Amino acid sequence: MVGTGGAKLLRIQKMNRSSDRRPIGVFDSGVGGLTVVRALWRILPGQDIIYFGDMARLPYGSKSGEAVTRFSLEIANFLRRRGVKMILVACNTASAYALGTLQRRFRLPVLGVIGPGAKAAAQAYPRGRIGVVGTSGTVHSRSFQKALRRYASGSKVRAVACPLLVPLVEEGWWRGPVTETVARGYLQPFRGWRPDALILGCTHYPLLRGLFGKILGRRVFLIDPGERMVQRAREILKGAGWKRAGRRRGRTQFYVSDNPEQFRRLGGRFLGKKIGKVYLKRF
Amino acid sequence: MVGTGGAKLLRIQKMNRSSDRRPIGVFDSGVGGLTVVRALWRILPGQDIIYFGDMARLPYGSKSGEAVTRFSLEIANFLRRRGVKMILVACNTASAYALGTLQRRFRLPVLGVIGPGAKAAAQAYPRGRIGVVGTSGTVHSRSFQKALRRYASGSKVRAVACPLLVPLVEEGWWRGPVTETVARGYLQPFRGWRPDALILGCTHYPLLRGLFGKILGRRVFLIDPGERMVQRAREILKGAGWKRAGRRRGRTQFYVSDNPEQFRRLGGRFLGKKIGKVYLKRF
Repeated sequence: MVGTGGAKLLRIQKMNRSSDRRPIGVFDSGVGGLTVVRALWRILPGQDIIYFGDMARLPYGSKSGEAVTRFSLEIANFLRRRGVKMILVACNTASAYALGTLQRRFRLPVLGVIGPGAKAAAQAYPRGRIGVVGTSGTVHSRSFQKALRRYASGSKVRAVACPLLVPLVEEGWWRGPVTETVARGYLQPFRGWRPDALILGCTHYPLLRGLFGKILGRRVFLIDPGERMVQRAREILKGAGWKRAGRRRGRTQFYVSDNPEQFRRLGGRFLGKKIGKVYLKRF
Repeated sequence: MVGTGGAKLLRIQKMNRSSDRRPIGVFDSGVGGLTVVRALWRILPGQDIIYFGDMARLPYGSKSGEAVTRFSLEIANFLRRRGVKMILVACNTASAYALGTLQRRFRLPVLGVIGPGAKAAAQAYPRGRIGVVGTSGTVHSRSFQKALRRYASGSKVRAVACPLLVPLVEEGWWRGPVTETVARGYLQPFRGWRPDALILGCTHYPLLRGLFGKILGRRVFLIDPGERMVQRAREILKGAGWKRAGRRRGRTQFYVSDNPEQFRRLGGRFLGKKIGKVYLKRF
């Protein structure tokens, strides 16, 4: 089941109806999940956030399900010890491989990007052609494909792995002929097929939104699953009475397992804002 | 000091003058170090080899010195428990960051690629212009630059980080316009400068030898530090009486921390030969 379990929610709801100052935990393999922090700042501006980027072991996109699940459990345990009220798995690969395990292991609500991303596509085009782009891990796990079959059984789905797009974005090459050539190559299977919607199934891809639109045409509905996950988090927090009250803007704390300086430098570009202090937490 | 310590060698030499069947340990962040295995097969065909690829935590090129040193110690401990007589650090980034620590911690000879690579350039062009290409970690550690100052104080050195070349090679794009465009961009600082030699300071780059030659001109002396390290290993083994006697070809065992299947598939290309069994050893 994608989501958080109704009974669990109801129980916690009864425990706590007042304003809830506990932070929201967000994690990713590195800087990519900062696109989710950006969405949180916009959609849930009052919430405190603890972000964890697993810079020591990134990328997750080429690693096995076992490895990604083990890394995710370590991070989720760390976030729980920091007292978060909810965990958002910003990384598509970790959502694809580890969400079920995390939801079983933790009493907290744990949300991933796959369900919300697939739902958004299904609602817009229940019988349409839906494209998915992601890392090798995300595509080979077939998580988006399975979720789309559940939410939009009448849809046609085509998924393509685009491994080079992450290193290209991390190298800062968001524009320019190299990235365009690489992206055109990967998107070739979608050209004649004419998808109605394209799920941007990796935290780095929202930064390539303009390029995807240029290659596939502006008619294609581009879906950022991270943003959809944050909207779902907002519903849950509201329903559970967990929204932090008041007009104060939330604080965001950043933790990484390696390279705080590099995270600060690269992360600023994902966040559209300078990052201050970054804490180091090795596993 | 680059090398293995004379006193240590002499001591072990006395202990064991006969043929030594213990394997040589080789490690790398992933498949790249298989170019070193290939050199071992050619230069020391009788030796048994245990290879370790840290597929769970690759790449090393973007990680900090602390992280790479910690990973390297874990792997070297594993190799020691497997009874190796010598450890070859195939990864340039691990050589740059962790070699000193490994040499202090282990009584075994531990060799890296930086010293042998720099020496080869220094011997050929003691007062020449020497270029270095490598990962961000290798270049920023300034290890090649320092070694060259030691071995060829009259030389001029220019080092350039080429982060995208590893993912391009791992994606199988060894040829073609994209990789050539990216490589031309990175090598721009060498064009007017006209280097005499270029140190291929990453295990993946020997596979791009043809492309480097095409861009910089065939006059440039291209140095593969991994091959030089293997030649140095041969001298040491011979000097210590550690060479495995007889005409039997050595056996090679492969271990990885994740993704044995992917290692087998990609590794075959680096090795120029199919890989059989790959063992999984998680940390």
